[in-house]
Amino acid sequence: MQNVDNIFWFIPFSSLVALGFAFYFFKQVMKESEGTDKMITIASHVRKGAMAYLKQQYKVVGIFFLVIVVMFSVLAYGFNLQNEWVPGAFLTGGFFSALAGFFGMKTATYASARTANAARTSLSLALRVAFRSGAVMGLVVVGLGLFDISAWFIVLNYFVDEPSVAEKMMIITTTMLTFGMGASAQALFARVGGGIFTKAADVGGDLVGKIEAGIPEDDPRNPATIADNVGDNVGDVAGMGADLYESYCGSILATAALGAAAFMGNAELQMKAILAPMLIAAVGIILSIIGIFMVKANEGATQRQLLKSLGRGTNISSALIIVFSWVILYILELENIWGIWGAIVTGLITGIIIGRATEYYTSEEYRPTQKIAESSSTGAATVIISGLGMGMISTAIPVMAVVVGIIFSFLFASGFDMDNMGLGLYGIGIAAVGMLSTLGITLATDAYGPIADNAGGNAEMCELGPEVRKRTDALDSLGNTTAATGKGFAIGSAALTALALLASYIEELKIGIIRLLETAESYAFPNGNVVFTASDVSSISLMDFMDFFKVNLMNPIVLIGIFIGSMMAFVFCGLTMNAVGRAAGKMVDEVRRQFREIPGILTGKNEPDYANCVAISTKGAQKEMLLPSILAISVPIVVGLVFGVAGTMGLLVGGLGAGFVLAVFMANSGGAWDNAKKYVEAGHLGGKGSEAHKATVIGDTVGDPFKDTSGPSLNILIKLMSMVAIVMSGVTVAYSLM
Amino acid sequence: MQNVDNIFWFIPFSSLVALGFAFYFFKQVMKESEGTDKMITIASHVRKGAMAYLKQQYKVVGIFFLVIVVMFSVLAYGFNLQNEWVPGAFLTGGFFSALAGFFGMKTATYASARTANAARTSLSLALRVAFRSGAVMGLVVVGLGLFDISAWFIVLNYFVDEPSVAEKMMIITTTMLTFGMGASAQALFARVGGGIFTKAADVGGDLVGKIEAGIPEDDPRNPATIADNVGDNVGDVAGMGADLYESYCGSILATAALGAAAFMGNAELQMKAILAPMLIAAVGIILSIIGIFMVKANEGATQRQLLKSLGRGTNISSALIIVFSWVILYILELENIWGIWGAIVTGLITGIIIGRATEYYTSEEYRPTQKIAESSSTGAATVIISGLGMGMISTAIPVMAVVVGIIFSFLFASGFDMDNMGLGLYGIGIAAVGMLSTLGITLATDAYGPIADNAGGNAEMCELGPEVRKRTDALDSLGNTTAATGKGFAIGSAALTALALLASYIEELKIGIIRLLETAESYAFPNGNVVFTASDVSSISLMDFMDFFKVNLMNPIVLIGIFIGSMMAFVFCGLTMNAVGRAAGKMVDEVRRQFREIPGILTGKNEPDYANCVAISTKGAQKEMLLPSILAISVPIVVGLVFGVAGTMGLLVGGLGAGFVLAVFMANSGGAWDNAKKYVEAGHLGGKGSEAHKATVIGDTVGDPFKDTSGPSLNILIKLMSMVAIVMSGVTVAYSLM
Repeated sequence: MQNVDNIFWFIPFSSLVALGFAFYFFKQVMKESEGTDKMITIASHVRKGAMAYLKQQYKVVGIFFLVIVVMFSVLAYGFNLQNEWVPGAFLTGGFFSALAGFFGMKTATYASARTANAARTSLSLALRVAFRSGAVMGLVVVGLGLFDISAWFIVLNYFVDEPSVAEKMMIITTTMLTFGMGASAQALFARVGGGIFTKAADVGGDLVGKIEAGIPEDDPRNPATIADNVGDNVGDVAGMGADLYESYCGSILATAALGAAAFMGNAELQMKAILAPMLIAAVGIILSIIGIFMVKANEGATQRQLLKSLGRGTNISSALIIVFSWVILYILELENIWGIWGAIVTGLITGIIIGRATEYYTSEEYRPTQKIAESSSTGAATVIISGLGMGMISTAIPVMAVVVGIIFSFLFASGFDMDNMGLGLYGIGIAAVGMLSTLGITLATDAYGPIADNAGGNAEMCELGPEVRKRTDALDSLGNTTAATGKGFAIGSAALTALALLASYIEELKIGIIRLLETAESYAFPNGNVVFTASDVSSISLMDFMDFFKVNLMNPIVLIGIFIGSMMAFVFCGLTMNAVGRAAGKMVDEVRRQFREIPGILTGKNEPDYANCVAISTKGAQKEMLLPSILAISVPIVVGLVFGVAGTMGLLVGGLGAGFVLAVFMANSGGAWDNAKKYVEAGHLGGKGSEAHKATVIGDTVGDPFKDTSGPSLNILIKLMSMVAIVMSGVTVAYSLM
Repeated sequence: MQNVDNIFWFIPFSSLVALGFAFYFFKQVMKESEGTDKMITIASHVRKGAMAYLKQQYKVVGIFFLVIVVMFSVLAYGFNLQNEWVPGAFLTGGFFSALAGFFGMKTATYASARTANAARTSLSLALRVAFRSGAVMGLVVVGLGLFDISAWFIVLNYFVDEPSVAEKMMIITTTMLTFGMGASAQALFARVGGGIFTKAADVGGDLVGKIEAGIPEDDPRNPATIADNVGDNVGDVAGMGADLYESYCGSILATAALGAAAFMGNAELQMKAILAPMLIAAVGIILSIIGIFMVKANEGATQRQLLKSLGRGTNISSALIIVFSWVILYILELENIWGIWGAIVTGLITGIIIGRATEYYTSEEYRPTQKIAESSSTGAATVIISGLGMGMISTAIPVMAVVVGIIFSFLFASGFDMDNMGLGLYGIGIAAVGMLSTLGITLATDAYGPIADNAGGNAEMCELGPEVRKRTDALDSLGNTTAATGKGFAIGSAALTALALLASYIEELKIGIIRLLETAESYAFPNGNVVFTASDVSSISLMDFMDFFKVNLMNPIVLIGIFIGSMMAFVFCGLTMNAVGRAAGKMVDEVRRQFREIPGILTGKNEPDYANCVAISTKGAQKEMLLPSILAISVPIVVGLVFGVAGTMGLLVGGLGAGFVLAVFMANSGGAWDNAKKYVEAGHLGGKGSEAHKATVIGDTVGDPFKDTSGPSLNILIKLMSMVAIVMSGVTVAYSLM
């Protein structure tokens, strides 16, 4: 094990390297000038609004976390249904996720004016500033994520004395999965709250500004403009950061738990299997940093050259991770190296295919989006119908890619033995880790988009002229293309991770039963059907466990769970959609009121009351994010208590099946509507101001909550429900009715 | 068994009674005057268009059926993978379904002008004509359905010589499920084709007529008006008839198959369990006829009185079926009479709850729809967002009602023993039968809606004056309310029936294996894991079977199937949505062309070319219905061959989970948008012609394919996929890869 212990330290080391480079890039960005006084003022408005929002959100989330921590403490210290580390782990998961969002957003708000100012000089300089700020976000997310994982591993591995190695492994995996639940819970709040904030401002501002008053986007005369720019930061930067923090940690932790389960009985292999995903992530960090340095362009580079340059960075990182993950597996001397490596490569390829499919279905360069744009000739209704239809059809390729990815990662890792469930499932988990290993750079290419968007807003408000705006628009649209790949990785990894979490749920059930057996000779499941003794539980296979608990498709309880799970995905989306609708409605009222009551706004004589719009979005988001989030956490607990293991697994699978497809559908419809509008704005079908344009603006508005609020939250919902089920499995085995 | 044999003859008898009364009501309707020459001409235009469409559709479906029958014949006579009756059963299922649609639609097209003419006299007379025509449809559907079921039962029970009773039972259930597949396949074509036809005409006509030219609905100057009215007949009458024919037969046949399985080894109880659902349906027919006669109103009755009168009919039938189903069970001396009766009552209550929930979420009398209407003050985009959000949230109650319905019907029938799977599942099936037992009258209240709608169209085109139009509108809106209950029953029964079909799938697998064992001593499943001998198979329990085939939620193959199933629901909807979009686009082009090229249409000097619009809808529907229908049939076959039993069951469950929720969402969103528009048209929020009205018209247009094409087709899709899997189970056991 000495060998393994030494290798371990590479993980915290590379997390610190990530944070160091994040700080370095941050300093570099800060060196740039923020431009004119007006640019500085506007940027500071946005920054203050964003920080005020974040502070408010963290307050609400803090109270929520407090409640959960108290609950966990009671379960851990009062009932012995959790281990003692669980409350702390939950807390740090949420804390570090929030920290990542905070740093990333702070950088983004400092970077927007600097990017706009750089755009006055050249496109490539602007790219440099925006991309480096995005890199801060990317590296902070992976750095803090891996740091937190390492910290817990150190505490649990080196400072906990447990009677047996097996029990130690259990404590490690359970505690770390709780940390994942903390990250997921915080991510859900960040995505839902941020998503509601940004879309309320965006939709509300557009409805009055663009459609009623006929003023362009980001026009300083629109009272919702600052709120809209704040929204880009709290939704698209902080929200997305927390989202991917959760995905990143979730995939590593679920895989680690599966690794421990797969090699039950062989402590050394267990430890290696736990470390493998962390090591791959650690190497991915170094490769991401290399990739980030690869992204540079000559002065006066064309957009095509810039795109190539961005692509080079991510491609090199991806290619290198394929090589280095093999090296890691080789050094670790894990079982079936080639097979597990095959699973990692399968994961990467799956992510790339989903990304390409997303691009095909949402980019205005391809037929699907053009067809949606063309349907505007018969009005808004047909734009909506064709966008919905296209989005639904577009689920086929991503789903089939994941299906094929699951099969091959399972088959490779299990050595083509369908009965070797342990290794096969580990393969599925590690495929997700492979997909997300170079998140440092893919997130950088994602996060720089909203920064460029904000820079455009700053340029528009400060009237920096069409040339500057054109450059920031070029960056923005560049970001849309690269973001498609990023989205593919996020969605694909969510499906694979959720699957891995399902398996972890079963493992945690075993741990819960073992815990109960500490005080009793045998354990009978509440329905009385299954009686375990300690020796049973540790020797039992996953499949036998499924048989014991009747988690099969003819058990009506399982089917009930699946119905509830499918419904949860839809109800959750409905709640967030309606939340955006309501908050946007309030924004519309406020903007109309300001136009009416403050004279001279439209002629530019008087400044609108930006702060009030920010306050309305903040209030709306805080109020509206609670119900869906509480639902996501309470439903798995209630289902667990009422319907037991079979019902809970049904719930998770139903949520995963419907939620995954619904998420792809909503993201793609939303993206396609956005770009269909851009396609018309680029001069097709009558261009800006035409009837076709109006119709596509309505499509874009409907798509806003699809792609930025409800759709992306679903990925988190799916995983959070699984995490809750896992963490509450002790309670399920002790108290469930069925 | 003599006792049982005598009781049986009540089933064909009551099916003939239904057909007799259908003929009687038809004659009664035909006695009424069709009104003025113009009314007769217009009605004959619509009738000819509808018949031409149906002829064309049956041609395409006929070719399709021929291909399938040839395939079945090869499997049955060439490979011994089907029994010899299967091809014929498939054919009659489709044929009788088509016949029911044909008779129902023919009556409807004769009734519209007669209803309009009756409305010139009084509201109650118009109700009488329309409702009796609807009753023809209702009685033809249940009559032909039960007739076909009885006919096959007679052939198989009295004319087939099989070595053992067990084998005979198997042949009966397999053959009859194939007949269900025929009905489902024909229903899918009818729903999808009819749905595309009607919505292409409706959407296309409205987009140009209402929005661009500013002429009212059903205005004779609109070239798409006749096509729109034809659409009501082919979509809402013939399509719905085929849909419910399929639901009705499906629930009876699936329950019969489960009954045979539940009492395996006891031929007498098997026979009784097979007959019970048929007998309940037979009694339901008689009670429906009684209910239909209860629906009458005094001359000059108010709308409230009419609604009460309609409600009285359905309520009395429902109350009586509760009593008489107990009597049937008592006479049959089936096991656990009270429990099975409890399941039937549970089914009825579940249907009523879903109906009430549907009404709450889609009627303009309640807040949800009013809120959607109010969101029109901020434009079409917020109407769409809030309609989608509300529709998604509205899935909660129906899904929970079904969940509770499943639990209780299972628990009651199984005597509160979760391990008594056979009887429990039979309970779920018979709950669906209970729900649909009074279909004769519920379908009558459904089918009379489109007849009233068409009567309104006829009145508008013949300029019969506002009073007549007001009366037909009153009938139409009355129909919307009663239709909500009907929809609840259709959706709820689909979920329960699909669940019952899942269990039948396993039973059919056994039969497939037994068939293979006729020529071999033992049978190994293609993956080599499971080896059966003849004695194994017959003694094996459902749960053991699930274990053998690893149909549990941790098997990646099952999860893959669930992903594909969820995706199928979305892709199918996407295809049908896009089909409507495309066909409507062509209609828009045609209507615009006529306005442009035929002078004097808008001033009423020249008649538009109605026939061309009908032809365009026909062509569009024929072309567009093929791909989704073929997909629905081929995917289960392919998944069965590649992924075997575990993958197929995953597919069915995934399709059921996502499809059921998606169907409720789409139906409710669509209904709510429709009524939000009506709410504005009734004078709220600015009334007709206001901006709010325009926004809600866009919502209504988007909702058209939701509620009349994609949503209702999903119910059929779910069941058809199950039926295909069942019928092809022999092939799956023989040739699947996994």
